[in-house]
Amino acid sequence: MVRTAITRRMTFSSGHRLYNPGFSDEKNREVFGDCSNPNGHGHNYVLEVTVSGSVAEDSGMVINLKDLKRIVAREIIDKVDHRNLNVDVDFMKDLIPTTENFAQKIWEILDRSLGKGLLDRIVLYESENNWVEIRR
Amino acid sequence: MVRTAITRRMTFSSGHRLYNPGFSDEKNREVFGDCSNPNGHGHNYVLEVTVSGSVAEDSGMVINLKDLKRIVAREIIDKVDHRNLNVDVDFMKDLIPTTENFAQKIWEILDRSLGKGLLDRIVLYESENNWVEIRR
Amino acid sequence: MVRTAITRRMTFSSGHRLYNPGFSDEKNREVFGDCSNPNGHGHNYVLEVTVSGSVAEDSGMVINLKDLKRIVAREIIDKVDHRNLNVDVDFMKDLIPTTENFAQKIWEILDRSLGKGLLDRIVLYESENNWVEIRR
Amino acid sequence: MVRTAITRRMTFSSGHRLYNPGFSDEKNREVFGDCSNPNGHGHNYVLEVTVSGSVAEDSGMVINLKDLKRIVAREIIDKVDHRNLNVDVDFMKDLIPTTENFAQKIWEILDRSLGKGLLDRIVLYESENNWVEIRR
Amino acid sequence: MVRTAITRRMTFSSGHRLYNPGFSDEKNREVFGDCSNPNGHGHNYVLEVTVSGSVAEDSGMVINLKDLKRIVAREIIDKVDHRNLNVDVDFMKDLIPTTENFAQKIWEILDRSLGKGLLDRIVLYESENNWVEIRR
Amino acid sequence: MVRTAITRRMTFSSGHRLYNPGFSDEKNREVFGDCSNPNGHGHNYVLEVTVSGSVAEDSGMVINLKDLKRIVAREIIDKVDHRNLNVDVDFMKDLIPTTENFAQKIWEILDRSLGKGLLDRIVLYESENNWVEIRR
Repeated sequence: MVRTAITRRMTFSSGHRLYNPGFSDEKNREVFGDCSNPNGHGHNYVLEVTVSGSVAEDSGMVINLKDLKRIVAREIIDKVDHRNLNVDVDFMKDLIPTTENFAQKIWEILDRSLGKGLLDRIVLYESENNWVEIRR
Repeated sequence: MVRTAITRRMTFSSGHRLYNPGFSDEKNREVFGDCSNPNGHGHNYVLEVTVSGSVAEDSGMVINLKDLKRIVAREIIDKVDHRNLNVDVDFMKDLIPTTENFAQKIWEILDRSLGKGLLDRIVLYESENNWVEIRR
Repeated sequence: MVRTAITRRMTFSSGHRLYNPGFSDEKNREVFGDCSNPNGHGHNYVLEVTVSGSVAEDSGMVINLKDLKRIVAREIIDKVDHRNLNVDVDFMKDLIPTTENFAQKIWEILDRSLGKGLLDRIVLYESENNWVEIRR
Repeated sequence: MVRTAITRRMTFSSGHRLYNPGFSDEKNREVFGDCSNPNGHGHNYVLEVTVSGSVAEDSGMVINLKDLKRIVAREIIDKVDHRNLNVDVDFMKDLIPTTENFAQKIWEILDRSLGKGLLDRIVLYESENNWVEIRR
Repeated sequence: MVRTAITRRMTFSSGHRLYNPGFSDEKNREVFGDCSNPNGHGHNYVLEVTVSGSVAEDSGMVINLKDLKRIVAREIIDKVDHRNLNVDVDFMKDLIPTTENFAQKIWEILDRSLGKGLLDRIVLYESENNWVEIRR
Repeated sequence: MVRTAITRRMTFSSGHRLYNPGFSDEKNREVFGDCSNPNGHGHNYVLEVTVSGSVAEDSGMVINLKDLKRIVAREIIDKVDHRNLNVDVDFMKDLIPTTENFAQKIWEILDRSLGKGLLDRIVLYESENNWVEIRR
């Protein structure tokens, strides 16, 4: 048995600050380093969303990329692009915006929006040198 | 237990048109968008072929990349590079040349050519923003 | 004196065939190789458009990238994306669609549309291994 | 006569907001779009610094890349990485942090630090799709 | 159930020669091609190290990337960067330095150093066109 | 007046060691750092060769890329790929194989081979983070 999966890559830019209010300033600096600087910084994120399933005979597609792109834009990109993750994004409230936490929230939202166990994997790049992958 | 897999990346350029003759023109436009334009367009495809298995002690290799490259060139690249997928490629006849259908045919051909369950995964990029992965 | 220039990168996919009707079939094959295959192939083109000039004090910009993007989309991308350069594109009629000829037409059109000598350079990639640059 | 130039590529991440206090909110939104969102966002910047000159016979170098890297780190990267350009960076105070303005300040600082007209070109990428180049 | 994994990408440059002293010169040339040239050549390697596990609530991290980077630098990069794999690297002694053998040694060392089954996958690129992946 | 230039990108892998026999060991270490390690290391080099001129009307080309590729392969790639620059390459004898010196030799050879002032620029990448450009 083989698995067929299709991926759409999308990009956005957000600001964030890694900071745990339950930590002392010294502890925040120790754990998060420069990422805890008070006035925040930001990243060009890259999000790859992978959907797997059977290929429909009449379209030759697992999912129409137009539909996948529309759903990811509506549920994620439009809410985080050119926004501050600590302040402006409802689904990130009360969470430290590490790549791990951010990716887990994106997974939960897309898994619910796509339904039927279609979501196979997401990869969220914070930079060219580090990224988080979640797969079922 | 760990799995060791080696990948070879190759590129080619093909023309195609996404079109289902059983659909009305309106339906083709709705499903395939600009990809159904009558005179076709094309892509720089990237194909990554991954083979897994044990590492031979005398060569230190899972498979000799020269052999892998030769097989992929003979079975796939030579038949699709600078060709029109709808018209010129025998194994794509009567199929809508979506990335999913194209990747599934490539998988079938390489799995048969390599034999012994060596083929582990292929990834076929249609553009920098969308690709299909098939794995065992 | 320094020169400040800003670049916008955009992508599109087109089909084409390199063929000179004044050449014999043998001569076409000799000059253009597989690029002269009768049913055409295609590429994911990348177009980088560079504008240089002074930086406006109130906006901090040489040109607003929204405006640059809109002009390039209207004048070029919308006319060539998912089209066949030999058949569907008015400004390429009666021209062999080599990267050189294609880039020169794009330069002429954008230089006229942008005006005031703003256009500084374009780079048109046909693949990751070859591209054409035109600069003033 | 030929020119020999050597380039070092470095990366950093900063936060910023494009906003002109002399503009109305409406005008800021019109000119800067989402980039004027109040709580800021950010980018993974890439900075390429190019130095040209003659090649010293005993080292075979235009400039020792260790020295170039050290100067760029001390003068630029250490001051902007994981910082907010609007708030934390002295040399960007009272400037709209567009890529153009940011690049011009980087040019001025590096040209002064390197001296002798060594600095040939800088390229500052704000994203994979837009960047600013300054050259002598 | 989903799996959350974080990856750190690092680079280094090494020299090597593929050669089996138990083979004749002719056999070495047949199996390893130009890679068996006597005076060696080299590569810019890219190493991606992936760790998976649960996300700690107080840090929002699977592993602190500073720690992961420090361990990979100490155990691997410092020992192989700007070194000759055949001569200078203890853990490669008596092994043909193919990408497969090299990756397996890196896996063993990092799996032992990280402990607790944290190591999920490594990918070792020898060039932009070939790489080896090991996963649990 | 505009300038039209076409570029071909090619890759190769070589070994080298940076070392000046007229320097003490200490001085070599100070100037060249780890690059002076006795047993050498190596790189995946990328070479971009740019030719400019008028576009021939019958071919639509500045130069046939097949010819350009053949000349660069014969004059450069075949002589340096999978070779040690200090030992195996005639045109690098008695030169410290820095990227600057290597690029200048490549420029001289290609300028002579191409003739007619066709060669416009070469860029030689030693890694993703540093490269040398020579232009007329």
